[in-house]
Amino acid sequence: MKNKKILLAYGSGGKLMHQLIEDLFLKNFNNEIIEKLDDSASLPSLSEKFDICFTTDSYTVDPVFFPGGDIGKLSVCGTINDLSVCGAKPLFISCSFIIEEGFDFEDLEKIVDSMRKVSETTGVKIVTGDTKVVEKGKADKIFINTSGIGIKDKNLKLGKEYIEVGDKVIISGTIGDHEISIISKRLNFETEIESDCAPLNKLISEIIKEGEIKFMRDPTRGGIATTLNEIVKEQNFGILIERRKIPVREEVKSICEILGIDPLYLANEGKVLIVCKNKDSEKILRKMKENEYGKNAQIIGEIVEEPKGKVLLETEIGSKIVIDMLSGGQYPRIC
Amino acid sequence: MKNKKILLAYGSGGKLMHQLIEDLFLKNFNNEIIEKLDDSASLPSLSEKFDICFTTDSYTVDPVFFPGGDIGKLSVCGTINDLSVCGAKPLFISCSFIIEEGFDFEDLEKIVDSMRKVSETTGVKIVTGDTKVVEKGKADKIFINTSGIGIKDKNLKLGKEYIEVGDKVIISGTIGDHEISIISKRLNFETEIESDCAPLNKLISEIIKEGEIKFMRDPTRGGIATTLNEIVKEQNFGILIERRKIPVREEVKSICEILGIDPLYLANEGKVLIVCKNKDSEKILRKMKENEYGKNAQIIGEIVEEPKGKVLLETEIGSKIVIDMLSGGQYPRIC
Repeated sequence: MKNKKILLAYGSGGKLMHQLIEDLFLKNFNNEIIEKLDDSASLPSLSEKFDICFTTDSYTVDPVFFPGGDIGKLSVCGTINDLSVCGAKPLFISCSFIIEEGFDFEDLEKIVDSMRKVSETTGVKIVTGDTKVVEKGKADKIFINTSGIGIKDKNLKLGKEYIEVGDKVIISGTIGDHEISIISKRLNFETEIESDCAPLNKLISEIIKEGEIKFMRDPTRGGIATTLNEIVKEQNFGILIERRKIPVREEVKSICEILGIDPLYLANEGKVLIVCKNKDSEKILRKMKENEYGKNAQIIGEIVEEPKGKVLLETEIGSKIVIDMLSGGQYPRIC
Repeated sequence: MKNKKILLAYGSGGKLMHQLIEDLFLKNFNNEIIEKLDDSASLPSLSEKFDICFTTDSYTVDPVFFPGGDIGKLSVCGTINDLSVCGAKPLFISCSFIIEEGFDFEDLEKIVDSMRKVSETTGVKIVTGDTKVVEKGKADKIFINTSGIGIKDKNLKLGKEYIEVGDKVIISGTIGDHEISIISKRLNFETEIESDCAPLNKLISEIIKEGEIKFMRDPTRGGIATTLNEIVKEQNFGILIERRKIPVREEVKSICEILGIDPLYLANEGKVLIVCKNKDSEKILRKMKENEYGKNAQIIGEIVEEPKGKVLLETEIGSKIVIDMLSGGQYPRIC
C-alpha cells in the first residue's frame, strides 16, 4: 500500500470503488448490517412495528446549479431515493453543509429553497443539520451531506435472494439524462437535456402494491450497467437486457456518440431499476407509466439462467455481449 | 442579501452561525423537531418503547492528524457525544467521505482504523457509508460526515424547561485542550497538549443514574462560553460561573496568553457541560471523577435569578462581567 494514492475513479461508482469498499471499509466496519451493502442500512432492532432504515450520501456535484436542478434538490432527492429503493418510506432527513468561504449567500438561499421544496412536496422532514465553512480554495463552492431515516414493513420481501429466472427487469424511464446535463453544462454544449433529478418515493410506494417486486435500486454513479452487475454479482443467475428496449433520448444518444461514451454507464438521479415477477411485470409497468416520473418506463430485459453472475446485452444487430461494471470513471463530480 | 458572502465565522459556532441557522435554515426547514436546535433531533413517533434520536456532523479539521487523535476518531466521537448529551444511547453511525484526489491510501487506512477502534470500544456500529472523490485542489485532503442514531428513555426529563435557580453547572474536565492542540500543530508550537477527543457515552450513562440532570451539552465550537449562552438564551434565569473553578491546564493558559485568546471560547471534543439539581451535584461530580474522561471534573457555577438570559463570570479578582457567545471565529477548521 506504500505510496498508493486515492484516484478519482475510487469515487466513480465502478470497480475501484467496490474494491475500496470491500478491502477497506467492510474489513474495518465489519458487522451484519453494513455487509449487505444496500443503499440503506436496515435496523430491525429499533422498533417492533417496522424496520428502520438509515442511509447517507455526500453530494459534490459540479456545477452546483445545472439544468433541471441544483445540489440542494439533488441531495434531498438522492437520500429519499436511497431509502425508497430499499422499500422504506422516507420520513426524516439531516443536512450538513461544507461551504467554501466567499460562497454567495444568495446561492445558498437558492439551494436551501430547493431543499425546502422537495421536503414539502414529499412530506419528508429535514430535522437536524450542521454547517462548516472552510477557507477559500479548500473546498469547491459547496458540498452537502444528507442522511435519512425511513420505515419499512417488516414483511416486505425485497432482496436478491427472491430473484428467479424469468423475472423481468424494468427501468422507470430514459437513462443518462442527469450525467449528460452535467457534462453539457461543463463543456458548454447547447442542449435541452435536463437532469432527471426527482424524488421517487411516491412512484415506488404506488408500484410496490401492484405486484411482486423483488429488488429495486436507483442507478446513479456507474449507470444501469453497474447496477445490473451489482445485482448478478456472485448470484446463481444472469441478466439479459436488450439495447433496443432501453429508453434513451435522441439528444443523449447524440452527445454520447460525440464523446464516445455509453449511456448504460451514465448516472441517473430520478430513475429506479426494478426486478419483478414476470406475471406482474405488465401491471407494474402500467402503474409506473401513470406517474410523472415513470411515464417512459420500459421492460428492458429478464433474469436468465446463464451466464451466471454476468450481464448480457443483446445489441441492436442481435449479437450478445457481456457488459461489466464501470471500470474507471467516465466523469467525476456528477453527483 | 445582494453580494453577501459566506464568511468563515458562519461556521465558527458563534453568533453569526446562530444567525444563519435562524434566518435561513429554520425559516425554510420549519418543523417542530428542528426548531428545538438540540444536538440531535428527537423522533418520538418512530418507536413506542423509546425516542429515537438522530444527529449529523461534518468534520473538516485541519490538520487531519493531530496530537490525541485524527479526523476519523473525531468524527465518530463527535457523533457519539451529540447523541449522548441528548440523553440517548448511541447505537448506529453512518460515515461519508469526501476525499481529495491524491490523498494517501495509507492515511485513509489510519483514519478508518481510528474509526473502527472507537466503534469497537463504544459498541456503536458503523452501518452505512458513502465515498466521493474530488479533483486535487477541490477539497482539503479529507472531510468526513458522520450521522448517528440513538435511543432515549421516553421518561427522561432533559431540557432547559427543567432548569431552576440554584442548580449547579459542572464541566467534566479541563477546557480548551482540543483547540490548543490543533492550533499548536498548525503554528508548530512545541507542546505536550493533546486533544481531549473522546467518546462520552459511558461517562454520561453512568452519571445520568446518579442524580437529577437537567441539561447536557458538549462545548465544541465556540467553547463553554457559547454553550452557557445557548443555555440562558431567552430563559428566565442566568448563569454565574467562577473563573478560578474552571479547570484549565497550565500549558493551555500559557498559549492562550501568548495568543491573546480566552480558553472559555476554545473548542473541546471530549467534555460535557451539565446542569443538575444542587442537592445531587456532589454525588454526580464524584461519579464523574471515577471515569477516565471525568477525572478533572469541577462544579464551576450555578443558575441564578439575575441577570436573566445572561452569563456572568466572576473573575479571579472577584469582579463580575457578562460574557457573550463567540462573536466571529477565533480559528477556523478546528473540527
